[in-house]
Amino acid sequence: MTRLFDRHQGTLDRAMKALAERDFWSPYPEVPSGKVYGETAKADGLAAFNARISTPFILKGHPLEYTVGNEVSPYGQALLVDYPAASSTTLVSASAEAGGGLWAAATPETRVGICLEILARLNARSFEMANAVMHTTGQPFAMAFQAGGPHAQDRGLEAVAQAYAEMTRTPSSAIWRKPQGNSAIVMEKHWRVMPRGVSVVIGCNTFPTWNSYPGLFASLATGNSIIVKPHPNAILPLAITVEVARTVLVEEGFPANLVLLAADEPGREITQDLVRHPSVAIIDYTGSSQFGGWVRANAGAAQVYTEEAGVNSIVVGATDDFAGMCANIAFSLSLYSGQMCTAPQNIFVPRGGIRTDEGQKSFHDVAQGLVAAIDRLLSDPDRAAGICGAIASPATLERISAARNMGTVLRESMPIDAASDARTATPLIVAVDAAESVAHESEQFGPIAFVIAVDTVDDGIERAARIAEKAGAITAALYAREDAVIEAAADRFARAGVNLSVNLTGGIYVNQSAAFSDFHVTGLNPAGNASLTDAAFVANRFRTVMWRRPAA
Amino acid sequence: MTRLFDRHQGTLDRAMKALAERDFWSPYPEVPSGKVYGETAKADGLAAFNARISTPFILKGHPLEYTVGNEVSPYGQALLVDYPAASSTTLVSASAEAGGGLWAAATPETRVGICLEILARLNARSFEMANAVMHTTGQPFAMAFQAGGPHAQDRGLEAVAQAYAEMTRTPSSAIWRKPQGNSAIVMEKHWRVMPRGVSVVIGCNTFPTWNSYPGLFASLATGNSIIVKPHPNAILPLAITVEVARTVLVEEGFPANLVLLAADEPGREITQDLVRHPSVAIIDYTGSSQFGGWVRANAGAAQVYTEEAGVNSIVVGATDDFAGMCANIAFSLSLYSGQMCTAPQNIFVPRGGIRTDEGQKSFHDVAQGLVAAIDRLLSDPDRAAGICGAIASPATLERISAARNMGTVLRESMPIDAASDARTATPLIVAVDAAESVAHESEQFGPIAFVIAVDTVDDGIERAARIAEKAGAITAALYAREDAVIEAAADRFARAGVNLSVNLTGGIYVNQSAAFSDFHVTGLNPAGNASLTDAAFVANRFRTVMWRRPAA
Repeated sequence: MTRLFDRHQGTLDRAMKALAERDFWSPYPEVPSGKVYGETAKADGLAAFNARISTPFILKGHPLEYTVGNEVSPYGQALLVDYPAASSTTLVSASAEAGGGLWAAATPETRVGICLEILARLNARSFEMANAVMHTTGQPFAMAFQAGGPHAQDRGLEAVAQAYAEMTRTPSSAIWRKPQGNSAIVMEKHWRVMPRGVSVVIGCNTFPTWNSYPGLFASLATGNSIIVKPHPNAILPLAITVEVARTVLVEEGFPANLVLLAADEPGREITQDLVRHPSVAIIDYTGSSQFGGWVRANAGAAQVYTEEAGVNSIVVGATDDFAGMCANIAFSLSLYSGQMCTAPQNIFVPRGGIRTDEGQKSFHDVAQGLVAAIDRLLSDPDRAAGICGAIASPATLERISAARNMGTVLRESMPIDAASDARTATPLIVAVDAAESVAHESEQFGPIAFVIAVDTVDDGIERAARIAEKAGAITAALYAREDAVIEAAADRFARAGVNLSVNLTGGIYVNQSAAFSDFHVTGLNPAGNASLTDAAFVANRFRTVMWRRPAA
Repeated sequence: MTRLFDRHQGTLDRAMKALAERDFWSPYPEVPSGKVYGETAKADGLAAFNARISTPFILKGHPLEYTVGNEVSPYGQALLVDYPAASSTTLVSASAEAGGGLWAAATPETRVGICLEILARLNARSFEMANAVMHTTGQPFAMAFQAGGPHAQDRGLEAVAQAYAEMTRTPSSAIWRKPQGNSAIVMEKHWRVMPRGVSVVIGCNTFPTWNSYPGLFASLATGNSIIVKPHPNAILPLAITVEVARTVLVEEGFPANLVLLAADEPGREITQDLVRHPSVAIIDYTGSSQFGGWVRANAGAAQVYTEEAGVNSIVVGATDDFAGMCANIAFSLSLYSGQMCTAPQNIFVPRGGIRTDEGQKSFHDVAQGLVAAIDRLLSDPDRAAGICGAIASPATLERISAARNMGTVLRESMPIDAASDARTATPLIVAVDAAESVAHESEQFGPIAFVIAVDTVDDGIERAARIAEKAGAITAALYAREDAVIEAAADRFARAGVNLSVNLTGGIYVNQSAAFSDFHVTGLNPAGNASLTDAAFVANRFRTVMWRRPAA
């Protein structure tokens, strides 16, 4: 039963090395290139996606009491895919029945081998996944490929590697010899990894695979059975994932229902029933803070891991590369129209301006520098579409409208191509003064950013950190020239539980979180109670049970 | 700041090796001998204990709004020690103020060095602690020395070693180099361990140090500030612990209030206020399932680790050493009068009897064999006192009375020495038939055991496992001769989350849980949601926060 483990052991070993060393590494190429994925991969992936449209999504042997599916692409197309659906009671029963037996008794190597094979097959289908992610989330194609495909697979592999490291910390047997005078008590002891039970993974609309794979693969590798609950607007990427997982499980002689799809649609939601079900042992949740709070309060005895919302900040104190800074921030604000959980919302700038390589810049100069950089970045509509993608939820457009009244509009949000069916919006930039406004202290999800006048860079750091402590934050960025400022910011944001990026001006952005190196979310502020993927994220998904007897 | 780390690094390294290999090891000698602890250690320890009696317990700089203290030894003596006390609000404020600054910023090595020094000093005071534990819990002296002293210190060290292993899994810095065509993006990254905040440790009456040290030291080593909440009948052992910890912290330049005592007494309880306090981030609890359920339900966002109650079972199927089996079980039932969380309550015996080295034994033969072994073990009053100790709570005597009506009394519970002031009771043995009784399916804490007639050994295993799944269990024992029976029991008890001991007949008992080798409680049934001391027990007590910038 270790054939798949043997096949993928090199990948696993390298992943564990990367986790320990935190250097760059990925086994899944992020370039959507025919040279890597095969010359016909792009066309094949599109064809596979198109074949899904307007058809039932078949999962052989899956509970089916009714069908659901109302996905509409933010690019305009109705997907018209019908998914098998069942009540939470049926799903939890089927999951509990599939789990606990063979799967719980399998060795860590057997389970890890299967998880790595699932990831390898998902990798081969990255172009199909790219289309599925693009047309459920609104991500631009290149991003949908990367974030929905290889980068999500990286995060899944990271979770499997962490889980394997934790499962194998205790040996499967040992001899225990306690001296007693001239003699000894000698015991043989045997340990086994036991799963917790049924694990529910609740996906979000914007990153259905990237945010779900860590919990899914951590729970599967540690022997639990999985119910994947997609956001009703982003079912297809996770349905494909479930399909691949079930195929591999069945090939290896395990029940397909170890991985179930819990699809629902507005008016027939089942998430609350799943969360409250007493047989659910583990819940992974990505989504709003409001519903996240409900999940945490209503999950009963289940272990809950959340990534919720936050308010990410940039503090601009000084820079040696004003143009590079403005371009970098402009890209961070524009990428996927600010719909990344890591995207900045607040840009704190001293009221008296900052020192730069281009001389002193006033608050107004900095704000205008940012606006101009965004305008420049998005001046070509094709390029703008390739950066901004589309808006996942109509509610985001309403938020943009409301935000216009929160301060002085420095840059209008506009559709990228008014003639297109796509729901698009470029960044809205609003200036406020921290002495007069609290609008920026709440999350305004989407392409909405505030340039906020503060007393000093220290004032900006303190305000950004306090917002993180109160409303959550996943990322922070700082532009500064003095080491003392950088060190003070590193200390302050560490206390607020926010990962900080300093002086980004080139081709790397505060939004980016690299698997095997960057932990995503710290778990130390309201943006989430868990971290992708630290030991705490995996170690509580299983238990270690012993039997012992006097040694022969 | 690594002087103490350097001093104790050998101990730490050896502890980490033991955790990985799970062999026998302990740095703290368990024999209460003058040869080990110094010729005057025993007398000095008793004198130190006696000097505590009828005096205020001084903790310099500790919050003091009023005093409490109503401890009465189960051996008869009123301790009359007055402890400093304060409201939960005061304590949490003082704890939060002491934590977060220097302590959070200290390196793992600094904190771990201090924890190891505290443990070394506690070890040197093991005789004082033995008297304190004996006269608050009712444990016999030898057990109070071992369980309250060296074995508790072992469990503390185990937690520190696990915490150090987890804190150092991520490097403090790394260079991340991502190839980009002919060039590369190169980032320097810095990680630091950040604590969760205020950690409350709620102790129990019977094992105040052994059950509290894992949570206390795991939280302290990972940078949290600690509030130690003793059971109102067993304050002294934890007050001494707090005193030692504060002394070492102050010597090393840290605030004494990083470790606070939250003493209370009946009518002025503060545990519920502490549990509900929104600033409390971590709670460790040992005690009843009823209050444990309340703690889990009311702890808000705090991470909660519990050891609650359970019903431990022995299944007797066959034996090659009937006399050894009866003697072994007799000792397990008698030790500390069944007041260990690992003590067996239920002994399942096939209605048709069992095969033994002494030929076929009927159900009645087995039951009488156990009764005779207990009578023999406790025939000498001095030896009986040294094994049974005293009864911690008067409520236990009431439970014994009630249990007499639950079946056929095979052996009466009696005081060991009616003339003594000590509250004592030898084991009550009651026979029931599983077909007719459910009395044995609930916990009857204390020296109360049921011999239960069942159909077969398999029936006994299944019933014992189901009781564990429903009511919790920490230990199980099996006597069997066939490998198939042993394997089936190992599988079944693993699913029920119970550690199983097979065919114990010599000088090791099902009650015993050895640090560095045996995990205590699995976390997989209602006897507790955590395990001493696995990675899950420590990894969630801290967070990892990063800052990064382009490499120079």
